[in-house]
Amino acid sequence: MFECVGYGAESAEAPVAPFRFQRRDPGPKDVEIAITYCGVCHSDLHQARNEWQNTLYPCVPGHEIVGRVTRVGAEVTGFKPGDLAGVGCMVDSCRTCASCREGLEQYCEPGFTATYNGPEPQTGGHTFGGYSSHVVVDRHFVLRIPETLDPAGVAPLLCAGITTYSPLRHWKVGPGSRVGIVGLGGLGHMGLKLAHAMGASVTLFTTSPGKEADAKRLGADAVVISRDPEAMAAQGERFDFILDTVAGEHDINAYLALLKRDGTLVQVGAPEKPLPVHVFSVIWRRRNFAGSLIGGIAETQEMLDFCGQHGITADIEMIPIQEIETAYTRMLKSDVKYRFVIDMASLSDVAPKAA
Amino acid sequence: MFECVGYGAESAEAPVAPFRFQRRDPGPKDVEIAITYCGVCHSDLHQARNEWQNTLYPCVPGHEIVGRVTRVGAEVTGFKPGDLAGVGCMVDSCRTCASCREGLEQYCEPGFTATYNGPEPQTGGHTFGGYSSHVVVDRHFVLRIPETLDPAGVAPLLCAGITTYSPLRHWKVGPGSRVGIVGLGGLGHMGLKLAHAMGASVTLFTTSPGKEADAKRLGADAVVISRDPEAMAAQGERFDFILDTVAGEHDINAYLALLKRDGTLVQVGAPEKPLPVHVFSVIWRRRNFAGSLIGGIAETQEMLDFCGQHGITADIEMIPIQEIETAYTRMLKSDVKYRFVIDMASLSDVAPKAA
Repeated sequence: MFECVGYGAESAEAPVAPFRFQRRDPGPKDVEIAITYCGVCHSDLHQARNEWQNTLYPCVPGHEIVGRVTRVGAEVTGFKPGDLAGVGCMVDSCRTCASCREGLEQYCEPGFTATYNGPEPQTGGHTFGGYSSHVVVDRHFVLRIPETLDPAGVAPLLCAGITTYSPLRHWKVGPGSRVGIVGLGGLGHMGLKLAHAMGASVTLFTTSPGKEADAKRLGADAVVISRDPEAMAAQGERFDFILDTVAGEHDINAYLALLKRDGTLVQVGAPEKPLPVHVFSVIWRRRNFAGSLIGGIAETQEMLDFCGQHGITADIEMIPIQEIETAYTRMLKSDVKYRFVIDMASLSDVAPKAA
Repeated sequence: MFECVGYGAESAEAPVAPFRFQRRDPGPKDVEIAITYCGVCHSDLHQARNEWQNTLYPCVPGHEIVGRVTRVGAEVTGFKPGDLAGVGCMVDSCRTCASCREGLEQYCEPGFTATYNGPEPQTGGHTFGGYSSHVVVDRHFVLRIPETLDPAGVAPLLCAGITTYSPLRHWKVGPGSRVGIVGLGGLGHMGLKLAHAMGASVTLFTTSPGKEADAKRLGADAVVISRDPEAMAAQGERFDFILDTVAGEHDINAYLALLKRDGTLVQVGAPEKPLPVHVFSVIWRRRNFAGSLIGGIAETQEMLDFCGQHGITADIEMIPIQEIETAYTRMLKSDVKYRFVIDMASLSDVAPKAA
C-alpha cells in the first residue's frame, strides 16, 4: 500500500475536500498512473452527495483520468513508465460473461467495477477515483492516449467521449447519415464533434437560441431551437439517428416524431423521472427508443485512436482542484463550455489530512 | 357502380346496423371479392364510434376479410373468379415512396389507404370495409389464401396475424430465441402460435392465473403471472424479444427489465396514454423499445403461406352479423377466445335500407 493525496467527500453533507488515503501497490497485472488531468462528470457530484443512495464513504470521485505511467506489474505488456495512459468509468469486470467476452464490459452481467464507489477485492475496501495523485488499475482497463492530442482535452473523452461515440458506432452512423444531437453540454458537444467526424449531416437541437455559432464551430450543419414548434415541424421525418443527451425532463415524443422509418433515438442523458413515450411515436415508422451505457474497453481505445486521427478533444475549462465545489455549482447551472477538467498539478498545494 | 349489402354506422351514436351502399365496379387492376368471413378488430369499434375523432360517416368497418373472387379486371394476373382471396388493413398506397418500393406499404410516407375510412379517389368518397357482401380492391393489395386452412380462422390473420408476425420476423425471432408475449387476447394468442411455429421458446405474461392451460395449448412453453413480483424477478434478464400486445395501462419497465443486452420490446397494443419509460430500463443492457404497425403486402403473403405450412389459424368465435353490437360489448370485456369472426352468410337475412 502507498499513500495518495486527493480530494474526496467524507459524507453526503461534506464538501469534496483534501483527503489522504491508501492505494494498493501495483500487482503483476496492474498499471500505476500519476494523474495529470481528471474531467468533472455530473456523476461525480451525484455520487459525492449520495444522490443515488449507494455511496460508500469516503468518496473520491473522478472517472475521466489521464496521466503518465509510473510503475507496471511484471505481467503487463503494452505500457511502460512514462507512457501517457487513460482510465475511464470502469476498472474491472467479471471477464467471463457473454458481454465481457464480446468486449462489452460495460454490460458485464454481474456488473463492472466502477472507477470509484466499486468493490476492490484487493484491499477489501472500495475504489477511489481520479481526484487523486495516482491510480492503480488492471492493465485491461488502461487506455493508450494519442500523444498528438492535448491531454487535458482528452480526459473527458474517457466518459463523455465514449458515451456518445459508442451509440453512434453501434447504430452505424457514417457518411450520408442524418443525425440529430439533443442538448449542447458535455455529452452533446462531443456528440457534435464525433458525428461530424464520422461524416454525418448533424443537426443540433437546443432550447437556447444563443448557441448557434458555437454549435456550428463544433460540427453542427444546422441548429434547431426545440421550443419553436414551426422549426421542429419543418424538420419532417428525416433523421436516421438522434442522440438525446438531455438529463432534465423533456418531451422525447417531439424527437421520435422526427425519425425516419426504422430510425432510432438513443437516450444517454439520464432524467430522474420516467419519460412518457406515446405508443404511436414508435408504432408509426417502426421507430426505436433505446439507451446506451458508456462503451467497452476495446471500443474506448478505438474512440481514442479515432480522436487522435481527427484531432478531436473536448472543449474544456481547466480548474485547480481547490475550485471543485465552485465547478459543481456552475455545472448545475450548465455554466461550462463544455467540461471542467482538474489540473492535478494543483494538488501539490494540498496539505491533506489522513484518512 | 353496384349495390352492396352490409352493416355500418351512420354516426358516432348510432349502432352498426344494416346498410346498403354503392361500390365501384372493378377497374382493369381490381379484384372483386364476395366476402365469406370478416374478423372483428378493436379498431372497428374505435372507428365506428369515432373514438379517434376522424371517422367519415357512414362507416362500414372490417379489415380482416376473406372471400371468393367473383370478378377480375382485364389487367389482373394471379386471381380468377372462384379463388379464395383475402384483404387486410390496406387497399392502396402511393407505390412510389421508399417504403412502398421496399414492400413496406404500411409505412407509406404520404400514408396508405385504409380498408375503411380511407379516401377513395375512384368514387370521390371513402372506403368501406368488410362488414359487407363484396369488396373491390386493387390486385396489389389482395392476398392469396391457402386452401388447406379453415377460411373463417384465416380472417383474423389479415390484421392480428400480420401485426404479430411482422415484428417477430423483423427482429429475427427463430429457433433458440427466447420470446415473451405480454397479454393473451386477439394479438397475444397469434403471437404465441407464430413465435412457437418459428421455433422460439415462448413465455406468456398474463395478469390472469386461469389462462395457463390455454396458453400452453396455443404454444407457450411457460406462463408467468405478471402481478406476482417474485415470478417476474425469477425470469432474470433472459429474453431476446418481448411482444407487448396490451392496450391498457401497464408498466413496461417491468418487461424491459427482463430483456437481455440488445434485446427489444415491441409494443403492438396501443394504450391511449403515454407509457412512462425509465431511462435506466433502456440504458442498462442497451435495450430497445420499439413499435410495429401491421406488415407489408409481401410479408402478409409470406405470413399466410407460413400459416398454411404450419396449419395455423386464429381461434375464433363465429357470429352472425346481427350480433355485432353484442360482440363489441363482449370484446370490451375481453370476453372472447380469441377473435370474433362474422359469418357473412348471415347477411342474406338483411333487408337493408338504402344509403
